[in-house]
Amino acid sequence: METRKTLTSLSYKNVSVNDPFWSKYRNLVREEVIPYQWDALNDRIEDAAPSGAIRNLRIAAGEDEGDFYGRIFQDSDVAKWLEAVAYSLASHPDPVLERLADDTIKLLGRAQQPDGYLNTHFTIKSPDRRWTNERDHHETYCAGHLIEAAVAYYETTGKTRLLDIACKLADHIDSVFGEEEGKRRGYPGHQEIELALVRLYEATGEPRYLKLSRFFVDERGREPHYFKWEADQRAKRFGPESLKAEGYYSLYKINYEYNQSHVPVREQEHAVGHAVRAVYMYAGMADVAAVTGDRSLLEACKRLWDNVTRRQMYVTGGIGSNHNGEAFSFDYDLPNDTVYAETCASIGLVFWAHRMLRLDPDGRYADVIERALYNGTISGMSLDGRSFFYVNPLEVWPKACERPDKRHVKPVRQKWFGCACCPPNLARLIASLGQYIYSRGDDIVYVHQYIGSETSLALAGRQVRLSLETNYPWEGRSSLTVNPDRPGAFSVAVRIPGWCEGASVRVNGQELAEARSEKGYLIVTREWRAGDVVTIDLPMPVERVYANPNVRANAGRVALQRGPVVYCLEQADNGERLQELALPGEAELVARYEPNLLGGVTVVAGEALRGDAPDPDAPLYGKKKRAEAAVPFRAVPYFAWANRGEGEMLVWIRER
Amino acid sequence: METRKTLTSLSYKNVSVNDPFWSKYRNLVREEVIPYQWDALNDRIEDAAPSGAIRNLRIAAGEDEGDFYGRIFQDSDVAKWLEAVAYSLASHPDPVLERLADDTIKLLGRAQQPDGYLNTHFTIKSPDRRWTNERDHHETYCAGHLIEAAVAYYETTGKTRLLDIACKLADHIDSVFGEEEGKRRGYPGHQEIELALVRLYEATGEPRYLKLSRFFVDERGREPHYFKWEADQRAKRFGPESLKAEGYYSLYKINYEYNQSHVPVREQEHAVGHAVRAVYMYAGMADVAAVTGDRSLLEACKRLWDNVTRRQMYVTGGIGSNHNGEAFSFDYDLPNDTVYAETCASIGLVFWAHRMLRLDPDGRYADVIERALYNGTISGMSLDGRSFFYVNPLEVWPKACERPDKRHVKPVRQKWFGCACCPPNLARLIASLGQYIYSRGDDIVYVHQYIGSETSLALAGRQVRLSLETNYPWEGRSSLTVNPDRPGAFSVAVRIPGWCEGASVRVNGQELAEARSEKGYLIVTREWRAGDVVTIDLPMPVERVYANPNVRANAGRVALQRGPVVYCLEQADNGERLQELALPGEAELVARYEPNLLGGVTVVAGEALRGDAPDPDAPLYGKKKRAEAAVPFRAVPYFAWANRGEGEMLVWIRER
Repeated sequence: METRKTLTSLSYKNVSVNDPFWSKYRNLVREEVIPYQWDALNDRIEDAAPSGAIRNLRIAAGEDEGDFYGRIFQDSDVAKWLEAVAYSLASHPDPVLERLADDTIKLLGRAQQPDGYLNTHFTIKSPDRRWTNERDHHETYCAGHLIEAAVAYYETTGKTRLLDIACKLADHIDSVFGEEEGKRRGYPGHQEIELALVRLYEATGEPRYLKLSRFFVDERGREPHYFKWEADQRAKRFGPESLKAEGYYSLYKINYEYNQSHVPVREQEHAVGHAVRAVYMYAGMADVAAVTGDRSLLEACKRLWDNVTRRQMYVTGGIGSNHNGEAFSFDYDLPNDTVYAETCASIGLVFWAHRMLRLDPDGRYADVIERALYNGTISGMSLDGRSFFYVNPLEVWPKACERPDKRHVKPVRQKWFGCACCPPNLARLIASLGQYIYSRGDDIVYVHQYIGSETSLALAGRQVRLSLETNYPWEGRSSLTVNPDRPGAFSVAVRIPGWCEGASVRVNGQELAEARSEKGYLIVTREWRAGDVVTIDLPMPVERVYANPNVRANAGRVALQRGPVVYCLEQADNGERLQELALPGEAELVARYEPNLLGGVTVVAGEALRGDAPDPDAPLYGKKKRAEAAVPFRAVPYFAWANRGEGEMLVWIRER
Repeated sequence: METRKTLTSLSYKNVSVNDPFWSKYRNLVREEVIPYQWDALNDRIEDAAPSGAIRNLRIAAGEDEGDFYGRIFQDSDVAKWLEAVAYSLASHPDPVLERLADDTIKLLGRAQQPDGYLNTHFTIKSPDRRWTNERDHHETYCAGHLIEAAVAYYETTGKTRLLDIACKLADHIDSVFGEEEGKRRGYPGHQEIELALVRLYEATGEPRYLKLSRFFVDERGREPHYFKWEADQRAKRFGPESLKAEGYYSLYKINYEYNQSHVPVREQEHAVGHAVRAVYMYAGMADVAAVTGDRSLLEACKRLWDNVTRRQMYVTGGIGSNHNGEAFSFDYDLPNDTVYAETCASIGLVFWAHRMLRLDPDGRYADVIERALYNGTISGMSLDGRSFFYVNPLEVWPKACERPDKRHVKPVRQKWFGCACCPPNLARLIASLGQYIYSRGDDIVYVHQYIGSETSLALAGRQVRLSLETNYPWEGRSSLTVNPDRPGAFSVAVRIPGWCEGASVRVNGQELAEARSEKGYLIVTREWRAGDVVTIDLPMPVERVYANPNVRANAGRVALQRGPVVYCLEQADNGERLQELALPGEAELVARYEPNLLGGVTVVAGEALRGDAPDPDAPLYGKKKRAEAAVPFRAVPYFAWANRGEGEMLVWIRER
């Protein structure tokens, strides 16, 4: 193991977000999503799938009667809610909400078993099955979310009750798994605890947590295969028939690619299997690589990064194109209509990219964060914060969503889900947004995202206040005011997004002579004085984006993008049969801010060709090509689609 | 009921086919398919799914031991084989084959139960379940195929053994189902016996068979629903748990649309559910309508015909676009890659169209027969007659066939299937091809298909020999020699296909003055003399075919057709990434006969635009539009695709 210099992200705690675009979302999360999700966890939403999550905790604590309700990983929803609350309290103290969280934490404490075990499903239903089926049981997954919540709540509030619960649980897990004699050589069936244990290690300094995370990463995919071994144990103990009954032979899971345990992680070349599991694992690998300096792990991360982002990612930052198994497919297989692109997978991609940036200040990681943030993550939530997409398609024909093979694609967002992973995941992403904006080395600060914010950090022996003002993503100009407490030399690196041509960066209105470009950043090194202003101008013409020719679904098609925002056509603006619209190669495309549309968005307008309205009795096939006429069209930001009732939607438009 | 004048098809027995295109297929069926299928039925094909069908008969007859093997409808494969044998013997007497058939028929007789019941599955496995589950058990389906085989074998050979078996079985079924007190008011879960009983009625003159067929047609979909009633009976008898175990609640079948029993047949407006069930039922409805003159049934047939052929049919004559349930979808939902278009469904469409022609001499029925015959039916068989497609896609990316949602689409034909309905169905279609060519009224003969053949019929009191010579579908000229035994006036109607413009018909080289056009036929009424020759010239330029704009999958795309033959691009001719090819609107398209390609086919060649070969490391998305260059391309007949190894295929080509 060698050590390696890494960057440090500025914590959400130390970054105050005040941004015209994002503050709306953050207020929604605070005012709508967190209270709504609390009601959901308590089964108080009418016409929505019940959750049972809080009641499960009460039953496990012996304070209520009844059976466990929900998915085997239902506990994780409570943890994700607590994590979002922690981030929200950091920017907006709220004693009532904090009391609610404290009470919930106490309930978690009462539901925890004397040995540290905490999982309501097995405590209530089958204590004898604890730790018998890592592949399917999600015990470490739920623990991971609890640990993340605990670290966040501790960081925000300084309170240790949840952290203690998490440590006790982690200690228990550490007594079960490991390479030592008498422990199981197992690892998670749904990765998540790997990255959580590194967070716990960083919060507590306890090296056993890092060691356990590393063990999980290193052990994965080794032969003899643990998931086979534990199944053999169950067969011995509960009878061979039990495997069939429990779903052991499920088509997806019996294939180790589903949970990325087909080979050791360092040998993985292509992203395969369940996309959320994959990116959570890659994030954990990056964490372990950052903390331990393990180069082979870093190289595996980079290889997988290239595969995901250069072969398997939608233009919206969606990943996992395969509904069956919610999984990655093969390279360039990115169908727009039978897509999966789970909201959680794009969120996990942000988590992973954020960790890659820590290892390697390369703009391509921040570019992907930006792509996901402005497109495929927030598309998962309605503009009122009250309904959610699990699947984020790039082309929707509502009628086709009735086909059994497209039933997973919903044309309208739903209130809540039986498997409610996405809504609380979005809440914690948005509430912790501050942490994605800046990171720092000894004498350099990076600006990764153009999100209006303020922060303060020690840099080259000085305390520096930074203030970023912007109207991103609608306008390309951002101003960064640099306020060192006394003048001094250090570097400020601002990201020039991959989509941008002709960026200009000035300091106090002057063109730069001394700036250098490095891996997507313009680095300004100078003697900074209080009140210095860096102005970044990123030209934002409407761009036509073409897909790699290996992407079969997009042959002859074009997507529209302006700045980081990907656009789509909606039926609400353009009528039915969006597939008929063809965009001439030379058509002028105009961007226009519409303050009253969809909460205020910049739209793209122009003229496209479209066939005449078809005769309702026209035959199925004929020799006559229909006449076409130029018609005006309007494209709206993809993230804002499906906020005006059910209708068709299309990202990739035919180009003529 | 009113009676109605109908046309009579000339039987396969009375039409001798001698056609450069079809004789090859007919020889294949005789020399390859029938012997191969006999081996398959006897489990003698290595590396192919076993059948067990003959062994099941032996076990049911008490001559072998063991358990039933295969699908619940395994018996039907033997019946379809016998039916194909009957047709084959009509054109090519073969004492050895006939002896094999006779022996098989004797075995069927020995497997038949004393009360007439004949179904090896229930005889072997669960005699107590006879007639307890019409929805799923396929007892009447297997009986229908047996009856069809029996009628064909009787017509060809004059032998009555199989006909007696069939009558005994039909009598037994008639004792079980009907409106009389004590009988069940049930009907088939998989339609087929309806049309078979009309054939049996026409062969034997026994009115009970017609009455039973009509009962099945009339009773279908009435309330209280029979499938619910019979399930309640089973629940009472075998316990309510038995319904779950037997699959009663299966997603598709619990929905009555799956088997078209959602409403009475006369109220059905759209084709829904399992496509083969649907078209077999429509064929049976047309039969009952033809024999009884029932107008409301005829009108339902016409309405459903319009829906299927004007809203739900692929350009290849494929129907049933939905893999899940092998079913029709909604109007215009015709995806090319997740298609189903089962071979059997196109064959069933031919059966139905053939019966519609009997009711109404309208060329649109014969057009659809032609479309299916030259495209979506024979595409189900390899050119060597040894492997088969169940699913007939219009666009194939072999790698994508590994996706779980496209796994039903195979890029190469398979040797045999566990559910082997399609291969023997193709065999009986091709072996009985003669019956689709001509039909007659009192003083008119219709030529529906341009298939080289000879026949003889009584017409207006004369005996008339007809001889049709053609090189269809590669050349548009056909010559019909009309030889009445003495001169006389009658009409000859020749079909002008829907795809054809500028057809010319001459008699003895003279343009016609006295011909009239009627519903797709040119009717020549004159005094005919021996040796008169009708020459039909159907210009066959290469045509660009456009889909109705509601067909989302084909927006901006064009299919190539010449005569009745639909073309496709294959990787073998055009390399990978067929989606990249774009056909300029003005590109010249040349047809060329290639005697050494795919057994001799006319190809279509021209120049298309194609992007430069992509940089293997090109990014997923970029602003640069790739340069395009003109490249030659070659399209081959769709029916002949996938005969040169695994590769991409594409019917609908982007047009520029």
